[in-house]
Amino acid sequence: MTSRMYKEIHEQPEVLARVVDEGWGSVQEAARTLRSGGFRFVMLAARGTSDNAALYAKYLFEVHLGVPTALASPSTFTLYESTMDLKDVLVIGISQSGESRDVLETVRRTRERGATTLTITNDEDSSMAHAAQTHLWLRAGKEESVAATKTYTAELLLLYLLVAALDGADEPEPAVKELPEHARRVVETTWEGVARYRYAEYMTVVSRGYNFATAKETALKLMETTYTVAEAFSEADLRHGPLAMVTRDFPVVAIVPAGKARSSMTELIQTLNERGAELVVIGDDEGSLQKAAAGFRVPVSCPEVLSPIIHILPSQMLAHDLSLLRGFDPDSPRGLSKVTESW
Amino acid sequence: MTSRMYKEIHEQPEVLARVVDEGWGSVQEAARTLRSGGFRFVMLAARGTSDNAALYAKYLFEVHLGVPTALASPSTFTLYESTMDLKDVLVIGISQSGESRDVLETVRRTRERGATTLTITNDEDSSMAHAAQTHLWLRAGKEESVAATKTYTAELLLLYLLVAALDGADEPEPAVKELPEHARRVVETTWEGVARYRYAEYMTVVSRGYNFATAKETALKLMETTYTVAEAFSEADLRHGPLAMVTRDFPVVAIVPAGKARSSMTELIQTLNERGAELVVIGDDEGSLQKAAAGFRVPVSCPEVLSPIIHILPSQMLAHDLSLLRGFDPDSPRGLSKVTESW
Repeated sequence: MTSRMYKEIHEQPEVLARVVDEGWGSVQEAARTLRSGGFRFVMLAARGTSDNAALYAKYLFEVHLGVPTALASPSTFTLYESTMDLKDVLVIGISQSGESRDVLETVRRTRERGATTLTITNDEDSSMAHAAQTHLWLRAGKEESVAATKTYTAELLLLYLLVAALDGADEPEPAVKELPEHARRVVETTWEGVARYRYAEYMTVVSRGYNFATAKETALKLMETTYTVAEAFSEADLRHGPLAMVTRDFPVVAIVPAGKARSSMTELIQTLNERGAELVVIGDDEGSLQKAAAGFRVPVSCPEVLSPIIHILPSQMLAHDLSLLRGFDPDSPRGLSKVTESW
Repeated sequence: MTSRMYKEIHEQPEVLARVVDEGWGSVQEAARTLRSGGFRFVMLAARGTSDNAALYAKYLFEVHLGVPTALASPSTFTLYESTMDLKDVLVIGISQSGESRDVLETVRRTRERGATTLTITNDEDSSMAHAAQTHLWLRAGKEESVAATKTYTAELLLLYLLVAALDGADEPEPAVKELPEHARRVVETTWEGVARYRYAEYMTVVSRGYNFATAKETALKLMETTYTVAEAFSEADLRHGPLAMVTRDFPVVAIVPAGKARSSMTELIQTLNERGAELVVIGDDEGSLQKAAAGFRVPVSCPEVLSPIIHILPSQMLAHDLSLLRGFDPDSPRGLSKVTESW
């Protein structure tokens, strides 16, 4: 029987097409509202997979709009009851269910304290959809697998479109319109050599810049569905200490898309290779793929800023395949439920 | 032969006393300068251990001063050359050596773009000491072990004092003056039962709020000196997915100080205990310590906001003891140097 996770991974080409085709209008409208209100600082509130989408958005807002952007610590509001001055601050709460309790509370309390608020959810009737001044709907279709896949890429694309609209774009650029077809080609490609990791108890995942979010989301998918102790680092953070633990045979998943982050990633791969690490490479850089024990050659190319939408797909497939190989049910990670209620 | 790391761990009581006694005057002066310039947002730039001190400072600035605070992604400036609008933004660069290349570049570029800049280093003659409008010196004495210990607690305390001074304090409060003696009592306590973890290949570290920084720094020390695959989570983040990997015998280090974060931590410990996890508890909560396979009973009490300065000490000692037990040299993690030059 096909898992729901497999099904949802393969729905992503059509979900991405829907986000662009049906979502653009409401994104433009939201951007007009947000621009007329004005903001000088952005704060993103999310947990889990949505928090990884928030990390991607931090780079978008800072690099493309030049707006300093923070990832919120919800406990600042829910536990320590900060009375923060939020004038000129745009708070964006992201949650597929729209019911993540501490993110909801963060949106409510920051709105009370003067922030402009926007929420992004996959449920138009959720508490978070009603808690903010503006709401954007993901249009990903109901996600049934506990491990989020299609809502993650929908979040990334919607956030990209929002920043493009805030930056004055009249319509999505051609590279965006190519994403659904790119995604289709990637999810039709299959992993080879995954059996090698049947007994890998831990893995490190590394990338840089826009794809630091991809590394974090890859690690989360591996933890949730394969129970591998997977930890993500940016290339620079790995060099600042954790590199010490990487020795012969240590498995490292490296995400190496084209773009400005590539040269430091290929240098890191060289260092890891010299230390005898076991490399799993996702990307299209031939030199890096040749050093890998297992690789996923991404068969399409896109601008670096959009590459996280494409490069997470092989990771989702890796987590899924490895979960099945280990005899687990990727749809129902032990001890988790779809909506996390905790504070 | 006593390791340098051991020596530096035990220097912390005197370092903390020096930070308070000799550092307060320059902290007050810096606070006056920063207040007269005015700032509405804070951005902290750091790597490795100093980045964990920055995470602590994020909570301080947001809860105590009510100022939205971001952790900088240095690559935003060094790789993607963001032209961010940094009016009203205070950028704080933290580095024990003062030579961390991408943090230095972040300070330089943000200053050019209109930010007010402050650096905190342990070397008054370092590049970073000269790169900012204001510099604060750690006074921790030369740190020779690659794994930072005394510069971390000095950074935490200096950042606490800075926020207190910005908040209008005329002198450090009594609880601050007790820290050196508290630290002395903690470093004179010893771990028991560490041998149990001789062969532990991975560990998860968890705490919440102010001590999320303690969890991250604990994991970093374990990675650097014992090569354990150690990953830190906030209590809420652990529940959002990674909890799936925690099963019978999975080692979890839980940092449970008194304060507002305690009740959700004791609930988590209950959940972990029910799953059969192997608990290592640092704190003074008897119920949690009783569920632990190994525990460090912290023999002093202090306000939650100061507890990260005290609760990291047992973790440094755990990392040190486990490193020796495994036959490693805690002073010289393989493949690392004291100053990380990479971008």
